[in-house]
Amino acid sequence: MTRYTKGHATGNDFVILHPEVGWEPPTEAQIAAICERRFGIGADGLIWPAKVADIPGAEGEPDDWFMEYRNADGNGMRLFAYWLHERGDIGAEASIGTRAGTRRVTVSEGGCVSVSMGQAKLLDEACTVRADGFSLGATAVTVGNPHLVCEVASGQLRELNLTEQPTFDAPFKAGANIEFVASKSSNHIALRVHERGVGETLSCGTGAVAAAFWQSRRTGSKEVRVDVPGGRLEVRFDHEATLIGHATIVAEGELDEKWLDSLSDK
Amino acid sequence: MTRYTKGHATGNDFVILHPEVGWEPPTEAQIAAICERRFGIGADGLIWPAKVADIPGAEGEPDDWFMEYRNADGNGMRLFAYWLHERGDIGAEASIGTRAGTRRVTVSEGGCVSVSMGQAKLLDEACTVRADGFSLGATAVTVGNPHLVCEVASGQLRELNLTEQPTFDAPFKAGANIEFVASKSSNHIALRVHERGVGETLSCGTGAVAAAFWQSRRTGSKEVRVDVPGGRLEVRFDHEATLIGHATIVAEGELDEKWLDSLSDK
Repeated sequence: MTRYTKGHATGNDFVILHPEVGWEPPTEAQIAAICERRFGIGADGLIWPAKVADIPGAEGEPDDWFMEYRNADGNGMRLFAYWLHERGDIGAEASIGTRAGTRRVTVSEGGCVSVSMGQAKLLDEACTVRADGFSLGATAVTVGNPHLVCEVASGQLRELNLTEQPTFDAPFKAGANIEFVASKSSNHIALRVHERGVGETLSCGTGAVAAAFWQSRRTGSKEVRVDVPGGRLEVRFDHEATLIGHATIVAEGELDEKWLDSLSDK
Repeated sequence: MTRYTKGHATGNDFVILHPEVGWEPPTEAQIAAICERRFGIGADGLIWPAKVADIPGAEGEPDDWFMEYRNADGNGMRLFAYWLHERGDIGAEASIGTRAGTRRVTVSEGGCVSVSMGQAKLLDEACTVRADGFSLGATAVTVGNPHLVCEVASGQLRELNLTEQPTFDAPFKAGANIEFVASKSSNHIALRVHERGVGETLSCGTGAVAAAFWQSRRTGSKEVRVDVPGGRLEVRFDHEATLIGHATIVAEGELDEKWLDSLSDK
C-alpha cells in the first residue's frame, strides 16, 4: 500500500508519496507512470520525504526533514512544507533539506507558505531566445538552476504560443527554463514560464524568483508581486530571495497494487 | 470523506466517486474542479454509481447498477464495470443503466471488458469537415450521440494538428465528435478523435464504434480492430455494437475536505 497526497502550489501540481516501514523509493519507470496524466495519477512532479541523516552528503541537522523530488522546485517545497505542517511533522517554522541545499520555510494557517530560495545571480552573457517566430533579448540568471528572462509587452505575453520549444544560442548548454515577463509596475510583473524538459507550466518557483530578480534589479523594488497563469506569488529580496504563496491539498489515497506491479514488469 | 477511484480505459481517464450514507451528488463546480488536471485530481470525466430505482424514468431492473456520469462514454462504462466487478458488486456479466439506456457488460479476469453500445446509424446528409487547413468529406453517424467520420491517409492521421477546433457545415447544430480514420485493412483501422467540448482525447468509446461502423459498412467485416492513441479496442457488430477493451485502476483515495469546502464557497 503506497499512500500518496495530491496537491498544488499556484497550479504547479505534485504527488507526495508517504514512505512506510521497509519502503523503497520509486523507480524511474514508477515516477514516470505516476506523473503521467491519463494513464497515472498525473502531476508536474513527484515528492517524497526523508531525513537529512538518511541522505549521504546532505547539509543540515540530521533530524531535519529532507525533500526528495523529481521535476519539482520552490513550488514543490511550498506544498511539501504545508503537507508536513498539516501532518504535525513541523511547526510554523522549519528547515528542510533539498538536493539544492537547506531551505527555511514558514507556514501560516490557511496554507500560505514562504520558502527561502538562496541567492539569485546575474550572469554576464548576452543571449537571444527565439519563441513563436520572435527573437527576444534575454538576461541569464541562476537560482541554483539556469534561467533566461525575456521582456515582452503585456499583449504579447498573453498571445505568445509556447507549444513549440523555444531555442537560444547561449549560455546554458544543458538547457534552461525560459521566463517571458511583462512589467506591470515597478513591483509587479506577469510571467509565463517554459520549463526545460517539461514545456509550459502554470507556475515555476525558481522561474518566479529569476523574473522577480530581473525586475528588482531594474526598479530597485525589494518586493515583487508575480502573476503566473496558476495564481499569484510574491518574491522578497534581502540577503537571499524568499518565495511566498499558497499551497493546496486536493486528495489523499493509495496507489493500486496491481497497477504498481504491472509497472515493474516493464 | 468522499472516497474515489482513479483509472482509465485505453487512456480515457475517469474519477469514480464512492457514494456513502447521506451522500449528495457533486455540484457542477465540484465536477469541474475534480476533473481539472493541475488544480484538481484530473480526469476526462467523473462517474458515480446509483441504482436504477433511484433514477426517475430510468429503464432496467430496479436493483441494477446505474452509471451516473459527466463527459464519459463507452470507455467510462468499461472502467465503471471493472470497478464494480473488483468490489464484488457485479459478477462476470451484468446489466447497467445509463442515461443513454441499459448497457450489457461482460468483465473477464485481467480487466478486459465488453460493453453493448446499442445500434450505430448512418445519417444521409453529406458534410465537409475543416481541420488543420484540410477540407475532408465526412460521414455522419449517430451512436446515441453525434459523430462525423473522415477518412484520411495513414501519414496524414499521424501528422494532423488537432489543437485547433475542427469546423463543419452540417448536420449537427449542437456540435459533434469528429473521427479521423485511416484504414489499415478490411477489419483494422487507426483512429484519432476530437471530442466536442473537450478537444482531442486518447480514446473515445462511441467514436471507436462510429469509426468501426463506417469501416464495417465499407468492407462487410463484422469485427473491427481500432487502434486509438491510448491503446487497442475491438468493436463487434451483430444486432447491436459491442465495444471491447481493457480497463485499469490506478489509485483510490479521499478528496480533501478543506478543498471540497473551498469549492462550495465559490
